[in-house]
Amino acid sequence: MEQNLVRENERVDDLQINGLKIIQEPNGFCFGIDAVLLVNFTKVKKNAKVVDLGTGTGIIPILLAGKTKLEKAYGIEIQEEVADMANRSVLLNNLQDRVEIINADLKEIDTILKPNMFNVITSNPPYMDGKDIINENTKKAISRHEVKCDLNDVMRVASRLLMNGGSFFMVHRPSRLADIICLARQYNLEPKYLRFVHSRASKAPNLILIQFTKGGRPELKIMNPLYIYEEDGSYTSEIQAIYDARKLEEE
Amino acid sequence: MEQNLVRENERVDDLQINGLKIIQEPNGFCFGIDAVLLVNFTKVKKNAKVVDLGTGTGIIPILLAGKTKLEKAYGIEIQEEVADMANRSVLLNNLQDRVEIINADLKEIDTILKPNMFNVITSNPPYMDGKDIINENTKKAISRHEVKCDLNDVMRVASRLLMNGGSFFMVHRPSRLADIICLARQYNLEPKYLRFVHSRASKAPNLILIQFTKGGRPELKIMNPLYIYEEDGSYTSEIQAIYDARKLEEE
Repeated sequence: MEQNLVRENERVDDLQINGLKIIQEPNGFCFGIDAVLLVNFTKVKKNAKVVDLGTGTGIIPILLAGKTKLEKAYGIEIQEEVADMANRSVLLNNLQDRVEIINADLKEIDTILKPNMFNVITSNPPYMDGKDIINENTKKAISRHEVKCDLNDVMRVASRLLMNGGSFFMVHRPSRLADIICLARQYNLEPKYLRFVHSRASKAPNLILIQFTKGGRPELKIMNPLYIYEEDGSYTSEIQAIYDARKLEEE
Repeated sequence: MEQNLVRENERVDDLQINGLKIIQEPNGFCFGIDAVLLVNFTKVKKNAKVVDLGTGTGIIPILLAGKTKLEKAYGIEIQEEVADMANRSVLLNNLQDRVEIINADLKEIDTILKPNMFNVITSNPPYMDGKDIINENTKKAISRHEVKCDLNDVMRVASRLLMNGGSFFMVHRPSRLADIICLARQYNLEPKYLRFVHSRASKAPNLILIQFTKGGRPELKIMNPLYIYEEDGSYTSEIQAIYDARKLEEE
């Protein structure tokens, strides 16, 4: 089956978790450790309905479907070719009953998915602004820069889709924390858990993992930090436990 | 001179920095490591005009005046007895030309100090809300709980006093981070530097140190964390360097 699903310019990576695999295009945008950390941070209850905004390779809904008892996960991807590749990864893992890739603009997703109905939203959105991008249409540019959607769109849509009490899990850059928190409250998303990811304990953080609850009570719990490397350069035991991280491409 | 300045229920502590001393009342509210960390985090240029909101013992303006070339530091304290004690500490250190303690409600301080004129504002405000306080008038309650002023008051007044481009430095609890950031932007204070203080590297943070710039451009720099203890329980070299912290009373 694999032969029919994989194109010449693509390769299949083993996700090392429950036999899951993913199709990636080495010259395009490959998923990074960010997505794996986000999946690990995300709490999904049995029978949950989940949407991943800007799903790219489909790594997040595929891992969540493989690891949890969610009922259905939708991955929204604006790029037709990328959505097609993600869809073939769903078939490769035989997850088509529980994961659906939708090729659509997330800004208009409430014309396709019912608002106020979902338990969990996830997103690993573009981190960088799109102002200085010369070629806006490369896959890497769309995945990394706010060309097709920005933070405001992602937060608004996450809130729109979630039921009251449902949670939105996002990974982003620490430099955007103030924007993220202020936008969240505008959209009735209360920041509840925040975890910083540091390459080493002695360094400033590189990433944030943040959980919002729609309509939640204000009180932010800042968790213990997640360190990727020990000072000697080996992976920390927490990272080892999450995943055999050496197999992951860094973004 | 010391004899005339110190009351029977008080004691004099050596701050171990440039010969500075402070009068404290052991049964009242004594300054904690929080104030010392805030002073160390605060950047004060030569000839700066500084206001400390809710100054308590006066520890912050006294340390800043002793360590930097500021022109004038005002410490605002609502409790008459506490302000009197802080004022005697100023005299004890012979800092009366550069530090002035004002016994006033910070919410009305713009009737005493000119708005939009100060380079630096500092505050180690009450951390806890005042809802469940039975005896609102004890010194400890007023120092620790939002009885006489709340976060909103502190942020509003800091912004009112600062000149454009001036900075506000605050220490607070991580659980209030979302409130702090959202309020700051309401008052044109942009969060620029954020540092988490952890008892140990493996633990969630206990405190935040945050710098806002009035009218600043949005971009938050999250700094490397400050750890108080090594895993073996000894002070980290950074804490040792800041201060001989064993002399400090924990709050």
